[in-house]
Amino acid sequence: MTSPAPRFAGVVPPTVTPLTDQGEVDVTSLERLVERLLDAGVDGIFALGSSGETVFLTDRQRDRALEVIVKTVGGAVPVLAGCIEPTTRRVLDRAEASTRLGADGLVATAPFYAIVGPHEIERHFRSLAAGVELPLLAYDIPVCVHSKLSTDLLTRLAAEGILAGVKDSSGDDVAFRQLALSIAEHAPDTDFSLLTGHEVVVDAMMLAGAAGSVPGLGNVDPAGYVRLHRACTGGDWAAARREQDRLTRLFRIVDAADPATSAGATRGVGAFKTALNLLGVIASNAVSLPLRPLDAEEAARVRTQLELAGLL
Amino acid sequence: MTSPAPRFAGVVPPTVTPLTDQGEVDVTSLERLVERLLDAGVDGIFALGSSGETVFLTDRQRDRALEVIVKTVGGAVPVLAGCIEPTTRRVLDRAEASTRLGADGLVATAPFYAIVGPHEIERHFRSLAAGVELPLLAYDIPVCVHSKLSTDLLTRLAAEGILAGVKDSSGDDVAFRQLALSIAEHAPDTDFSLLTGHEVVVDAMMLAGAAGSVPGLGNVDPAGYVRLHRACTGGDWAAARREQDRLTRLFRIVDAADPATSAGATRGVGAFKTALNLLGVIASNAVSLPLRPLDAEEAARVRTQLELAGLL
Amino acid sequence: MTSPAPRFAGVVPPTVTPLTDQGEVDVTSLERLVERLLDAGVDGIFALGSSGETVFLTDRQRDRALEVIVKTVGGAVPVLAGCIEPTTRRVLDRAEASTRLGADGLVATAPFYAIVGPHEIERHFRSLAAGVELPLLAYDIPVCVHSKLSTDLLTRLAAEGILAGVKDSSGDDVAFRQLALSIAEHAPDTDFSLLTGHEVVVDAMMLAGAAGSVPGLGNVDPAGYVRLHRACTGGDWAAARREQDRLTRLFRIVDAADPATSAGATRGVGAFKTALNLLGVIASNAVSLPLRPLDAEEAARVRTQLELAGLL
Amino acid sequence: MTSPAPRFAGVVPPTVTPLTDQGEVDVTSLERLVERLLDAGVDGIFALGSSGETVFLTDRQRDRALEVIVKTVGGAVPVLAGCIEPTTRRVLDRAEASTRLGADGLVATAPFYAIVGPHEIERHFRSLAAGVELPLLAYDIPVCVHSKLSTDLLTRLAAEGILAGVKDSSGDDVAFRQLALSIAEHAPDTDFSLLTGHEVVVDAMMLAGAAGSVPGLGNVDPAGYVRLHRACTGGDWAAARREQDRLTRLFRIVDAADPATSAGATRGVGAFKTALNLLGVIASNAVSLPLRPLDAEEAARVRTQLELAGLL
Repeated sequence: MTSPAPRFAGVVPPTVTPLTDQGEVDVTSLERLVERLLDAGVDGIFALGSSGETVFLTDRQRDRALEVIVKTVGGAVPVLAGCIEPTTRRVLDRAEASTRLGADGLVATAPFYAIVGPHEIERHFRSLAAGVELPLLAYDIPVCVHSKLSTDLLTRLAAEGILAGVKDSSGDDVAFRQLALSIAEHAPDTDFSLLTGHEVVVDAMMLAGAAGSVPGLGNVDPAGYVRLHRACTGGDWAAARREQDRLTRLFRIVDAADPATSAGATRGVGAFKTALNLLGVIASNAVSLPLRPLDAEEAARVRTQLELAGLL
Repeated sequence: MTSPAPRFAGVVPPTVTPLTDQGEVDVTSLERLVERLLDAGVDGIFALGSSGETVFLTDRQRDRALEVIVKTVGGAVPVLAGCIEPTTRRVLDRAEASTRLGADGLVATAPFYAIVGPHEIERHFRSLAAGVELPLLAYDIPVCVHSKLSTDLLTRLAAEGILAGVKDSSGDDVAFRQLALSIAEHAPDTDFSLLTGHEVVVDAMMLAGAAGSVPGLGNVDPAGYVRLHRACTGGDWAAARREQDRLTRLFRIVDAADPATSAGATRGVGAFKTALNLLGVIASNAVSLPLRPLDAEEAARVRTQLELAGLL
Repeated sequence: MTSPAPRFAGVVPPTVTPLTDQGEVDVTSLERLVERLLDAGVDGIFALGSSGETVFLTDRQRDRALEVIVKTVGGAVPVLAGCIEPTTRRVLDRAEASTRLGADGLVATAPFYAIVGPHEIERHFRSLAAGVELPLLAYDIPVCVHSKLSTDLLTRLAAEGILAGVKDSSGDDVAFRQLALSIAEHAPDTDFSLLTGHEVVVDAMMLAGAAGSVPGLGNVDPAGYVRLHRACTGGDWAAARREQDRLTRLFRIVDAADPATSAGATRGVGAFKTALNLLGVIASNAVSLPLRPLDAEEAARVRTQLELAGLL
Repeated sequence: MTSPAPRFAGVVPPTVTPLTDQGEVDVTSLERLVERLLDAGVDGIFALGSSGETVFLTDRQRDRALEVIVKTVGGAVPVLAGCIEPTTRRVLDRAEASTRLGADGLVATAPFYAIVGPHEIERHFRSLAAGVELPLLAYDIPVCVHSKLSTDLLTRLAAEGILAGVKDSSGDDVAFRQLALSIAEHAPDTDFSLLTGHEVVVDAMMLAGAAGSVPGLGNVDPAGYVRLHRACTGGDWAAARREQDRLTRLFRIVDAADPATSAGATRGVGAFKTALNLLGVIASNAVSLPLRPLDAEEAARVRTQLELAGLL
């Protein structure tokens, strides 16, 4: 019953990657973003995740972004590096670069584009773990890779020490709860980290057994997520719920972009960047092609939500 | 801020429909099942839902089951009646029968089989509400009907008084949280009932704003769900979590059937019925074709879980 | 190598069910529709399929429509009756009614709404075949039932004489070709009927091994489909292709309804009925709730296509 | 009515990328493979497509494979180069490398992993076309990228000269036929190339309007596909159908791998490579992680099919 504390826990925002209008990494803005997260008291940084536009960046840009993040963090908290590529060898190449650049942990999804099944997925994670020295976390994100990591697989890989944790962006609360119980039963002696990637249900997932969260919206309001996490770990669920409700409302910035001319990533990362720009944290709300940045009218809607949330 | 109390709240188990080995409704077993639920203190009964094998029953059988339930309940708690048919007119026919037989509320899904879009779905619910006198709840169950009811639609229909509530079996915790907030903001003066259909995350969904639950597993352990609900409404979230964890483990009875020769409904309703049979509540674990009943070896696995949960 | 001729072959239009503005079966219009099909030389009639709005009709309406069709056909060609219900027993009830009313064959889909897997699907078709006397055809329509019938299953059931044919509305040309070969190899002594349900690729599917077609658009232009079928069976593929191209353009009537306010069934059956109304065959383009009939502006677009196709 | 001939037409096999047991490109085997294709009379080569394991290869490996192919082809037929990356800039980087290495055309999919909608997809192809000098073909492969390119979008981009063609791997014969007609009507003055990627229905798709095929199985039996193509263009559809039937049976090599331990890409590219190895064309059936090569028992099944098809 006295399992080790999870290695990665608390609030671990997945940083956006600020871009100049020429499409290059905006180093000054990125430094400012990371410093603001640290000032707010976050417990870790997840670099080069989906919010970080990783699959839009060249390897050179990815390296640059990670380098800046690691240097700015300066060891204050752990840095997880997303290694998001369709197949094993390409992930391993990113893992090698990330390790060289000073990451503290690596995060990989199931294969994508390639048509695979459970055996290929398991072989993927086993091969990755065998080829890296850093802790490896699985990134469960069916909306992007179009397969769900099963409770059985994750439990088995946790118990064997293949995986050090999971970032759950599956939106599947039933599976999340079952995973939390399964890990507690079958991998009790590990420091496996169960992190939710859904910023609007952190309180509920903490109650269900999460060790922390990887909230994209944490780029915008890191202090709110730190308060929320502390309320959860302190057992003050009523306070947690109030803070969560406020943040869930703030999340409506992802509805700011006109749905007739935008989808998914444009609406999400586009809104986060626009909010950060309005907050004076990053210099531009530029996003990568084929996304488009939010326009002035859409930005005004983001501003309204920031005001309602007390951030502006 | 003082919204009316939801009309339907608390623990509202969706009753299974016990069958004789000849495939007819087993009235004695059904009476015993309902009496046991009432004894446990449940707050309502949901007749003829998915757990009730509604889409497997003839209209005659449906009428018989509802009649027995209404009579056994005797007004002690409200009885919701599922009216699960692919299209509007057929649902209305079931609504009429259910009203005649004494139901207190009606539950309908989006159209299924028929290929429809948002306009047809909205027209469906508006037409239903216009044609019935009883309160109408929407049953959001994408895994069966293959469309998700949007937060916008549900909020609009709630605010207009078209819908009296929703049973959420979408497994989409993000949408659930957003719906809870949206209803609170846009339909504050209604007694709209937000009920979760996922028995393994009731604590988390109550924290997120649910008024109650419709737990299939509540057929098997109604007293557990009543304790869980009281812990939630009493603010004792640590106790709620412990009870939920126990029930989530008990839910593993749905893994008892051999996955190589069974799927979905066989594994779920088949396990619930087998458990109820082992508990002495219903006389047979018979299910409707094309499902198959659990065999002796599978039943032994159910028994083990019942023992672990302290029910046997 | 001299397999028996398929029992059901050629052009077998799935009749729409004309409705009065009060939503009842319009008998006179239905008689006129069927007579026009027979005059055009069709080889069979498929009553109560998806185009027939079967899942929108009450059992009484279904009986009435089938009765009228059987009587009007008067034995001139075989009448297939759709028995479209979610589960086994309910399908069997429809099968019994259809048999009593004089159908020559029965058509059933995989279970829907109910969550099932391959074993339940196979048990479904086996149980159906065991319970009926008429030939049973499988209706493979994943877009409605959300599962695809596998080549293996269909071949096995064909070889055993469980199934007398399949109506393929899967849109999966790869699987269709593989099924055609598989049936030829493993069920060569049967009169299994492989019918395509896709009206815009009949030539290609005939080349790939179909015995005939069940074209919804055949309600509108039966003579065109008869010419197309004869060109295919006569080996004049260039003529077949020209006729098919004309019919494929005519199929654009399904784009007449405004996509911003309509979907699926509204656009398809709504357009067929509007065309038949414009052609003077049926008295109203009324459709069942929650569908809506095409409006005047949309009907004008249908008229344009009918004129381009030389039907008006 | 005298549209220009499509720029890319006929049989354009998507070459596998032979690997050494160390996972590097096996140059000698690749040369032998390409020479065999040319000897068989193919009309083009598609390098670095899905069959080429492109998403498994590093950029260095991709460059090497393309270099070898271009050099071996020596201008005899056009070489299309797959530029398969999740987002615009990364595709453009591959386009630049492919152009430098001597490709004659470029092939790109819709974005993947990134969550996008129709506007982002259209912006993607427009941005790509604006950034490259070579002809650009769209690769419509929903099973990998999880979105389908619409007939409207493809027609519009064809008419504007943005796209020079499409490789259709959607398996959607209805959409394919509609696209063929739409291109003929709205982009008649272009040399747009409509190629089917489905090796088991080439005859049917040629009848429906394709200019040629990109058959993965063409790696194994290029001469068969050349015969099939000539029969189609010569109007001998009966001969085409016989050849297609033989090839469709040969395609069963993709069923050789044990389905209990393999899926998708393992079964497809694994079988093609095993067949080529058995035919003495490539030195090893090695595939990239996380795929696995077919084992001896599975290879024996491939051998049987090769014998039945008259290739061994």
